[in-house]
Amino acid sequence: MILLTPGPLTTARETREAMLSDWGSRDTAFIDLTAALRRRLLALAHGENTHACVPIQGSGTYVIEAAIGSLVGATDKLLILENGVYGARAAAIAQRLGRKVTSLRWPEATPVDPEAVRAALKANADITHVLLVHCETTTGILNPLQAVADAVAAEDRALLVDAMSSFGALPIDLRATPIAALLASSNKCLEGPPGIGFAIVARAALESAGPAASLSLDLKAQWQGFEKNGQWRFTPPVQVVAGTVKALELLEAEGGPSARLARYRNNFASLLAGMKRLGFAPYLDEAIQSPIIATFRTPPAWHLTFDQFYDALAARGYLIYPGKLTGADTFRIGCIGAISSGDFEKLLAAMDDILRRPA
Amino acid sequence: MILLTPGPLTTARETREAMLSDWGSRDTAFIDLTAALRRRLLALAHGENTHACVPIQGSGTYVIEAAIGSLVGATDKLLILENGVYGARAAAIAQRLGRKVTSLRWPEATPVDPEAVRAALKANADITHVLLVHCETTTGILNPLQAVADAVAAEDRALLVDAMSSFGALPIDLRATPIAALLASSNKCLEGPPGIGFAIVARAALESAGPAASLSLDLKAQWQGFEKNGQWRFTPPVQVVAGTVKALELLEAEGGPSARLARYRNNFASLLAGMKRLGFAPYLDEAIQSPIIATFRTPPAWHLTFDQFYDALAARGYLIYPGKLTGADTFRIGCIGAISSGDFEKLLAAMDDILRRPA
Repeated sequence: MILLTPGPLTTARETREAMLSDWGSRDTAFIDLTAALRRRLLALAHGENTHACVPIQGSGTYVIEAAIGSLVGATDKLLILENGVYGARAAAIAQRLGRKVTSLRWPEATPVDPEAVRAALKANADITHVLLVHCETTTGILNPLQAVADAVAAEDRALLVDAMSSFGALPIDLRATPIAALLASSNKCLEGPPGIGFAIVARAALESAGPAASLSLDLKAQWQGFEKNGQWRFTPPVQVVAGTVKALELLEAEGGPSARLARYRNNFASLLAGMKRLGFAPYLDEAIQSPIIATFRTPPAWHLTFDQFYDALAARGYLIYPGKLTGADTFRIGCIGAISSGDFEKLLAAMDDILRRPA
Repeated sequence: MILLTPGPLTTARETREAMLSDWGSRDTAFIDLTAALRRRLLALAHGENTHACVPIQGSGTYVIEAAIGSLVGATDKLLILENGVYGARAAAIAQRLGRKVTSLRWPEATPVDPEAVRAALKANADITHVLLVHCETTTGILNPLQAVADAVAAEDRALLVDAMSSFGALPIDLRATPIAALLASSNKCLEGPPGIGFAIVARAALESAGPAASLSLDLKAQWQGFEKNGQWRFTPPVQVVAGTVKALELLEAEGGPSARLARYRNNFASLLAGMKRLGFAPYLDEAIQSPIIATFRTPPAWHLTFDQFYDALAARGYLIYPGKLTGADTFRIGCIGAISSGDFEKLLAAMDDILRRPA
């Protein structure tokens, strides 16, 4: 099965084979593995001098909640830059935690506008934190991280970045881009198994944080636990950690994020050219599209339902992804994972075969 | 490496091999796997007619927090029955969430007293929920679940049970024991990989629950998600789910919890007899000791530190566990996992060899 999804995705066999061992979670060997995980992730973001890597058990959403509940205090105010469901979910998390929160919103096919962010910060001195979704998996749109980070830094506020589906491929350099907390998970561009997320947080922000909204999702306490004895506070998913460290080794062997991005761009180019040949229109302008996941419009006069199309592709070994848009009939195809343009050529041949059959 | 810990523990090779596949988390095959997980867990507790199984990504502590934050309302009051660190941690969670909470406390070597619980409930009409730790991993002490459940039911309050290190081996039957929420994780007596926990909750309690303290750890929303389309709300650790379902199949093949308990009792008997021969005194009276994990006192005049003893055993392939007691110098040895009394005979021979060497 080839997974053409935004994750969990197709992982390398070596990554899955790294999950074949048991580990004592408080033993030296596992403490070393955890240290390798934290060190490699921090180095990927170039945060060695300023930040600390705090892994968290669970899904990416847990990491977003941990960051909001740990870093945005009860008297702070969070501005969320929304152009998709992941921004909206961050707002729901902040509301649930009783944090003060407001949103700037754009349509799903429009990137976040850094000038509007700057104006909002100038007009609202009570906003202390801003949250940006780097690549909105809702559509695959890429938001302008550097320009937003510069605007937020110029106004002296703290930026949280949901880099869930960009980190590991798209360039992110904490030396050049002012980010208080970079949030991501094991199972997207890092091509690890799902089960852990992580926050790469400015050490100053961790040091000044009070108790979090939650005991489980407390980034400062989790960080202090790692610093104290190298151990996770609560039982970690040991096999997932081992698989993720192997995936990070494979990322380095591939040539790092730039090489991975080049492969994803190739995947995306093969996909886009083929889909156009088959008559599918991309939902986004190419200029604002990430090579992570692409949204396509369902053709107006189609003889298939999405479920029929999905099932026919699944029967041929390919899993695509449904749309998540409010106003348009679409579906999505992920370009990330341990897959290459050859897989996309085979996918496109399978689609061609399905589309040629009578209804 | 043989893990003699309370989990993550030694799993069967078949369980780890079940983690060698990738799964699309929204695909039919994985929806079926999730349904099998929920069905098998519910059946193990005999809760089919009254309860629902709600798995949660993360560690066991997350499940405790999810249950308190989802089922104990802002105007409710939780009584925690504490005789170890896991009871104390539940109290810390409730405090962090701003819930009203109080504790009855016993020394670490004394079981919870059901009559004291009954008296406390009679005297405090404002207590709505009670939390009991079935087997306190701090020492391995077994608390009297049935008698406590009967006392709580007689006073018409709701009982939450941390069955983290008992479920799957010690008998728990929701038809006979009134429990509002039974809380456990994949990596203890079920012998699965760590990475998911689960709450087996009375459907009436889920239906009447309001929004939880947390969006991520919201048992009602998680349950509604499963009921709606069979999917996890947020990315699940797909390999951990697959490994856990395999572990549940192996539990059934072994003969279910009673057969597993018999194996653990054998493990414990081999361990206890051998440790006494070697001069180690058990910390607890045998009458209140579970066969899950045993605490031993460090001999008064010993030529080894715990770390030296640990390292020497680790070099021979056995990982034991440090003590967690406040007032006594102890260490712990787990009896659970895919291990049998033969492994304990080998462990004891290794200990004998280490102890015979001069300091």
